[in-house]
Order: sequence, then C-alpha cells, then structure tokens
Amino acid sequence: MKIGILGTGIVGQTLGLRLIQLGHFVMLGTRDPSNLTEPKGRGPSARTLHSWLAEAGSKASIGTFREAVTHSELVINALSGAASLEVLNGVGEEHLNGKTLIDISNPIDVSRGFPLTLFVKDTDSLGEMLQRSFPNLRVVKTLNTMTAALMVDPKLVGSGDHTVFLSGNDIDAKVQVIKLLSELGWQDILDLGDISTARATEMMLAIGHAVAHALSPAEFAFKVVR
Amino acid sequence: MKIGILGTGIVGQTLGLRLIQLGHFVMLGTRDPSNLTEPKGRGPSARTLHSWLAEAGSKASIGTFREAVTHSELVINALSGAASLEVLNGVGEEHLNGKTLIDISNPIDVSRGFPLTLFVKDTDSLGEMLQRSFPNLRVVKTLNTMTAALMVDPKLVGSGDHTVFLSGNDIDAKVQVIKLLSELGWQDILDLGDISTARATEMMLAIGHAVAHALSPAEFAFKVVR
Repeated sequence: MKIGILGTGIVGQTLGLRLIQLGHFVMLGTRDPSNLTEPKGRGPSARTLHSWLAEAGSKASIGTFREAVTHSELVINALSGAASLEVLNGVGEEHLNGKTLIDISNPIDVSRGFPLTLFVKDTDSLGEMLQRSFPNLRVVKTLNTMTAALMVDPKLVGSGDHTVFLSGNDIDAKVQVIKLLSELGWQDILDLGDISTARATEMMLAIGHAVAHALSPAEFAFKVVR
Repeated sequence: MKIGILGTGIVGQTLGLRLIQLGHFVMLGTRDPSNLTEPKGRGPSARTLHSWLAEAGSKASIGTFREAVTHSELVINALSGAASLEVLNGVGEEHLNGKTLIDISNPIDVSRGFPLTLFVKDTDSLGEMLQRSFPNLRVVKTLNTMTAALMVDPKLVGSGDHTVFLSGNDIDAKVQVIKLLSELGWQDILDLGDISTARATEMMLAIGHAVAHALSPAEFAFKVVR
C-alpha cells in the first residue's frame, strides 16, 4: 500500500521505516522536502532525512505535506498536536476527502513546558478537532499512548501482551487501520467507539509520563486486563 | 487498626466491609449518623446503613465525619470529589494533622453530566488540593482508577495481575498504605511519586469510562506491563 506520513520526527521516521520493511511504499511529508541534511526529531535518535532515505531504500520518498497525501491511499498524522490542524489546512480539504487518517498526535500545549498540559482535554480532543474540520476525512485515533519504538514493535514489552486503543467514526477506516496494526504485530486492539473517545486516550498522556518517570529507563506498556 | 471512612456510598460500604473481614475496626463517617434507613449510593447495590451494620458486625460503627477521623489511626476519603474539601474543612485541621488520608475520590464535575468532565485536571488535582489545604495531613492518592468491587478483590480480574497506582509526599504514609493494599490482595503497587502525580490517575477517569463502555458489562483492570 502507498502510505503518506505527515511529520519527519522520531515517530514519522520510525513508523515509515517499519512500514517499508513490511512491504509498503512510504512518502514522508515535510515543510521543506529539499532540506535532507538537518537532523529531525529531538535527542540522540534525531537523524537527517538523508540518513533515513539511505536506510529506508527504494520504497521510501520525501515530499511536501500535500504530496504525501495525494500520493497515498492511507495517511498518518505524526506531526505535533499543535501543528496538525495548520498542516492539514495547508494540504487542503479536497485532497483529504475520502482518505483514512491515522492520527497519532497528542494535543500537548508546548507553550507551557513541564509538567505537560493539553490544549484540549475532557470537553474535546485533537482527534475530534481534525474530524470536525474535515468531515469527509476518516480520522482514526490510535497508537498515541506509547513511544515510537513500541508502536512498531509491541513485543518490545511483555511479549506484546498489552493493548492499543482505537477511536473513530468510520467502520471501514477502522477495519483498514486494524489490519495495519496487525501487520505491526498488535494483537490486543481495543475499539473504544467513535472519535469522541479520543479524549480518553489523549488524556492518558499524563499517566504515560508519570509511569515513564517512575520506571525510567524501563520500557512499559498499558494493558486492559479482562 | 482503627480505620475511619468518610462517605457511605458503594465505595465506603464495600471497603468498610472488606477491612472488617480483614480484622480492622471501621467507623463510617456520614453527615447524619442517625439516619440508618435511607439507601446510600446509587443503583441496585444501594443499601441502608442499618443493613450494612447488620452484615458488618461488632467491629463496625457509624459516626459523624469528625468522629470517623478522631476515632481512627487511618482515614479513607470515599466521598465524591466535589464534597471532599467541604467535609474535611468541617472536620477541622486540628483533627486531621498527622493523620494518613487515603484519597480515593475523583474530581468529577457533577454539574455537567455525561460525558464526564473533571473540575481540575492537568494543572492541578484533587489530591493536591486536599494536601495544600491541610499541609500536615498525609494524603496518599490510590485506588481511584477502578470500581469498588475491584478495590477490595483484585483477583476479580485476570487473577489479580494488574496495577494499582500510588501518589503522595510522605514516605511513611505510603508504606502504611502499601501494607493495607497488600492486605486487600494487591500485588502490583506502583508508586508514581509525589502527590502531583495524582493528576495522572485522576485523568484516567476518561479512559476508565471509555473502556467500561466498550467492554460493558465485562469487568476489567489496567496493568502497567514492564
């Protein structure tokens, strides 16, 4: 499948590489596709798109945000929460209509630093904001409760015996996303319901950070035991 | 141990009964201790204090909120989040100083109905509010991420293989609470850090309700897999 990923940080690069290994074609969308030499993402795992392309091989490409959408059957939002709406507006509704968007971003209020706060929470969610802005885009919120490393390799923790959540209004889009999650190795995929349930997983940012701080540097994952 | 429980709803009654079965003395604190015949709590499990006393036996008693505090070595806040501060103010700081308070309540904004919203969230927590109001009360937030049935019987789900969180500033109080949680059957007790980490578990109300809705009527529990 042709997959477009918006955002070239750790999440975009990690997901892109893994999806290519699984046989997909991936275009990373970025603000300036000509800039291949600036390290993307933060911290020691930041790398340039030049280095990413060299590793990813012939099924990988770099384009504008709009190109990543128009060239793809499925789009992944790996942007920061704060940038998501602006970038999608720049892509244009006519290019987004009918597409499935996997929304991984969280509405972190970057202006406030630590402890992390959210710019929407129990009365709205970023997933809902995107769905409201583009009614014919099929938004599916998922994978937003974990690190990039865990998204693409659930077996990293507890032999993969833990849970990924899913929220969205469109059943066909959810089926499509569940298939992709299965390819990534996910076994326990819990459909929470419509896109308003994205509030619940976005608000898990707080417990995610608290647990990460308490267990650091151990990897961990959330499981819904039942 | 002598334990005082503030609040006579399902949580207070369920915890009280179990703690008595474990050998403790329990006084339930309530607004009007003379009213033993009004059903407490909501739904089919609501029962009167008369019925509760009959089952709980000679180690059980009913008193005012203040009596439940002054007669006890350990206090449990099983009130609604909205009522908690007012009731503790009524008890009086001089009676609370030096006591350990297990805070189970969540800051649900009852004025707004469903979907549930919180009156404090990512910038503050009810646990912190109580701790700020009574600096010499030793507030430990725990058990607030699950149903009353699960609090007292972790084995109800997944043979008890799941997690209870703990937040608080006072190490001795946390040790005391960990001992009590162990008595209740808890094996995976995760200390998140100081009382500000109560924000994280209080915000889990949203994922708790979303999962409950998705799995209803199945029981479930959260586990931090690592």
